[in-house]
Amino acid sequence: MCVRAVMCVLWAACVCQADPNIIIMLMDDMGWGDLGVFGEPSKETPNLDLMAAQGMLFPNFYTANPLCSPSRAALLTGRLPVRNGFYTTNAHARNAYTPQEIVGGISQDEILLPELLKKKDYISKIVGKWHLGHRTQYLPLKHGFDEWFGAPNCHFGPYNDSSRPNIPVYNNSEMKGRYYEDFEINVKTGESNLTQIYLEEGLKFISQQATAQQPFFLYWAPDATHAPVYASKHFLGKSQRGRYGDAVMELDYSVGQILAQLVSLGIHNNTLVFFTSDNGAAVMSGPHQSGSNGPFLCGKETTFEGGMREPAIAWWPGRIPAGTVSHQLGSVMDLFSTSLSVAGVLPPDDRVIDGLDLSPALFNSSLQDRPIFYYRGNQMMAVRIGQYKAHYWTWSNSWEEFNMGINFCPGQEVPGVTTHTQEEHALLPLIFHLGRDPGEKYPISVQSKEYMDVLRQVTAVVHQHQGALIPGAPQLNMCDLAVMNWSPAGCERLGKCLKGPESKPWKCDWPH
Amino acid sequence: MCVRAVMCVLWAACVCQADPNIIIMLMDDMGWGDLGVFGEPSKETPNLDLMAAQGMLFPNFYTANPLCSPSRAALLTGRLPVRNGFYTTNAHARNAYTPQEIVGGISQDEILLPELLKKKDYISKIVGKWHLGHRTQYLPLKHGFDEWFGAPNCHFGPYNDSSRPNIPVYNNSEMKGRYYEDFEINVKTGESNLTQIYLEEGLKFISQQATAQQPFFLYWAPDATHAPVYASKHFLGKSQRGRYGDAVMELDYSVGQILAQLVSLGIHNNTLVFFTSDNGAAVMSGPHQSGSNGPFLCGKETTFEGGMREPAIAWWPGRIPAGTVSHQLGSVMDLFSTSLSVAGVLPPDDRVIDGLDLSPALFNSSLQDRPIFYYRGNQMMAVRIGQYKAHYWTWSNSWEEFNMGINFCPGQEVPGVTTHTQEEHALLPLIFHLGRDPGEKYPISVQSKEYMDVLRQVTAVVHQHQGALIPGAPQLNMCDLAVMNWSPAGCERLGKCLKGPESKPWKCDWPH
Ligand SMILES: [Ca+2]
Ligand SMILES: [Ca+2]
Repeated sequence: MCVRAVMCVLWAACVCQADPNIIIMLMDDMGWGDLGVFGEPSKETPNLDLMAAQGMLFPNFYTANPLCSPSRAALLTGRLPVRNGFYTTNAHARNAYTPQEIVGGISQDEILLPELLKKKDYISKIVGKWHLGHRTQYLPLKHGFDEWFGAPNCHFGPYNDSSRPNIPVYNNSEMKGRYYEDFEINVKTGESNLTQIYLEEGLKFISQQATAQQPFFLYWAPDATHAPVYASKHFLGKSQRGRYGDAVMELDYSVGQILAQLVSLGIHNNTLVFFTSDNGAAVMSGPHQSGSNGPFLCGKETTFEGGMREPAIAWWPGRIPAGTVSHQLGSVMDLFSTSLSVAGVLPPDDRVIDGLDLSPALFNSSLQDRPIFYYRGNQMMAVRIGQYKAHYWTWSNSWEEFNMGINFCPGQEVPGVTTHTQEEHALLPLIFHLGRDPGEKYPISVQSKEYMDVLRQVTAVVHQHQGALIPGAPQLNMCDLAVMNWSPAGCERLGKCLKGPESKPWKCDWPH
Repeated sequence: MCVRAVMCVLWAACVCQADPNIIIMLMDDMGWGDLGVFGEPSKETPNLDLMAAQGMLFPNFYTANPLCSPSRAALLTGRLPVRNGFYTTNAHARNAYTPQEIVGGISQDEILLPELLKKKDYISKIVGKWHLGHRTQYLPLKHGFDEWFGAPNCHFGPYNDSSRPNIPVYNNSEMKGRYYEDFEINVKTGESNLTQIYLEEGLKFISQQATAQQPFFLYWAPDATHAPVYASKHFLGKSQRGRYGDAVMELDYSVGQILAQLVSLGIHNNTLVFFTSDNGAAVMSGPHQSGSNGPFLCGKETTFEGGMREPAIAWWPGRIPAGTVSHQLGSVMDLFSTSLSVAGVLPPDDRVIDGLDLSPALFNSSLQDRPIFYYRGNQMMAVRIGQYKAHYWTWSNSWEEFNMGINFCPGQEVPGVTTHTQEEHALLPLIFHLGRDPGEKYPISVQSKEYMDVLRQVTAVVHQHQGALIPGAPQLNMCDLAVMNWSPAGCERLGKCLKGPESKPWKCDWPH
């Protein structure tokens, strides 16, 4: 350990020889437009706005899929869900995830960021939502994390135990209780202490590693802004936006606490912190349970900008220039590659890595050309190169759902774009200039020179991508009530083991 | 003059006994969402973002009408257009303005801000667009301004001289040339030096007054973001948004130049600067010719938030706390009252003033309850109290226009809200909570307690407002080709006098 010891002298700047710590703060369903610095009118995120003022803002940062599980799998593997298997082939262009009845999870063949960081003896902890599979073999400690405090699935519920168990909360490899039972979320009032618990878990871990002069990776993934949204008593009623804004304010407060702790421990100059979200705001959930995608079209579940563009801030005092904006096109998968890069670990060379090392943007303010692919399931729906985005397939959701009142684009309607049938545009993709038209309202005329020039460039990129693409085995096809969280490890000690039904697998139904 | 001399000592803070200078920077059709600090994804306004970081941001700031002329008349008189006469009675709920054929203009009975500032011997200059009437009796030097460089109308054109003269550019009370002739705007390339000229005019004026230790009022009103948008050569192609963004960047640069000059002249601690816009982004003009209203509904011409909520920043180093956000509901009319307050001039007591003195917000971070009224012509369409907005009338534009392709809400459609017929909701207004629903997408259920509580409050406010309202005589009813800018003062010297037709007045047609 001593080679990593931080050498400091009182009268000079701290020269940190240690491998840098890495903190990824991943929000759940928080939209691009939810931060003050990204234009939320109530300006309720002073800590995040300050983080941006002290760091680098990425207004062009994307998830790899507009839904939790595949987004998180992509972040931790540096690979598109179509490669790491976090998709379904049960139906065309459907987002799949890991509800309790899912049989699959993250493949043993995938290599996750914390596994690679072990090469440099990092200690890794995940706090909060995992969502890469809840069966024993899929849990975080089987995939490189040393510690975990959180839950494998969404905090949906409360459920009736006899037909559906409440989601367990784990401390490392054993459950500590269940949501709604031992870890309360009052669905009526929206009160829950979970964000405070997740904050404390994060702070404690940071403090322990700093004391031990131990380089660490903290994957801080609270889920307070995922419906049903919650906040602790102190924050309820504090925002101008109702319960959703209250949750944002508590998360913002927590971010401030974590950054302040880094400073007070003196490790801020040796810690890369990256803040982002897993998918766009779930605008279909209405104004009480979802956030804002700012000027962008639609939200979660869709491959419009509202579904996939994410708030993103990088912070590393002394290394990342303060108060800067990078127009680098970025992706959650880049956090895999960038983390490896700053830790000095080479990425795997036996597989395609989609992540880009953002070091040039972070440390030299330089930009790299790269495409952004927008997938829904295993279907590439759209691609962005530079300021241009080409849609090869469009749909928001089905007429059946829409007519039932489920609207993925409330208040928005762009004829021919926000379609309710799956529309293929392979021959003449719908092309938008996201600089002058961030809302994807004005397809560029197919008769223009601009269109033809962009089409030529984008076609080459798409051909190259699709020609070389070997999809991973799909992990999200099968469901079975028997696999639900009936008896997670540690349930015996708590008297929380439940008996599930016989195994009766079926092909999962993914409507979106 | 010597009583106003600024007393400074090198070893202490500058104690400014002089009456503070006032600069109002009014943009044209710039939207709330066009500033980086309000979430424009291309983050192209570093100077305005810095101005906000050094000053106070107002995310809840409004115009008094979603169109140029009545907005500007309201700003300079502190009174709603329905009081100061800047409206029409030719049709119901129509926005009227001052095109060349307008017969009327600002009434001699109105008292404008620069007239009042004369009581404290301020020197006042307007740079840029006037738009309160172009006939001799309506021009700025007849209404309190000491100097003017700019134009009386919009920079529409170029026109065929025989049927419609190009708009004159005045220097004080005489024309210096015409748009498209002596003051070029290349409609094809978008190149024009006008913003640079307006910047120079502003800087020169500031410098002269500072040298003379003369308190001044500068009303800086460039119009580069009004269609046809323009920028100078250096800025063309610089933004990620095309020509509109280029114009924004040049205006942002100019704001930075003006603030820097205040600092370099040492008068920044004695100057209140307020930046805002006259109405929402003209989204009906499409992505090449208009900006962004961020998360808000629709744009210019409408009484939805996109039409009336404006970007707003106050700056006064040493007086206004840096990096603050005020949630005070504000209005362009408040600039009248606030300017008088900081200059120590009492407002007129013989008439209703709608403006609010924002001093408590600016200097004590305290909030004042006040309603915001949303007018279209002489029709009160909506009212905001606190976070709630109640629509008494809705319409975007007519079916006839809409079917011709003119869309005031492109890509947006909220059933029952963005109506194409004028819909009255007097008995049960549509009520929105703008905190959790800034996009006006989710009317609050009329059956809820929340609705009934708000209705009671808002009804009282509306009754009080309408019961006491005495409309001014409408100034924008009559048109006549004979009154156009055929022979403005000074045209003889330039050989620019044109001969107009005989007078044939008609009732103007206001379609919106
Ligand atoms: Ca999510
Ligand atoms: Ca205007």
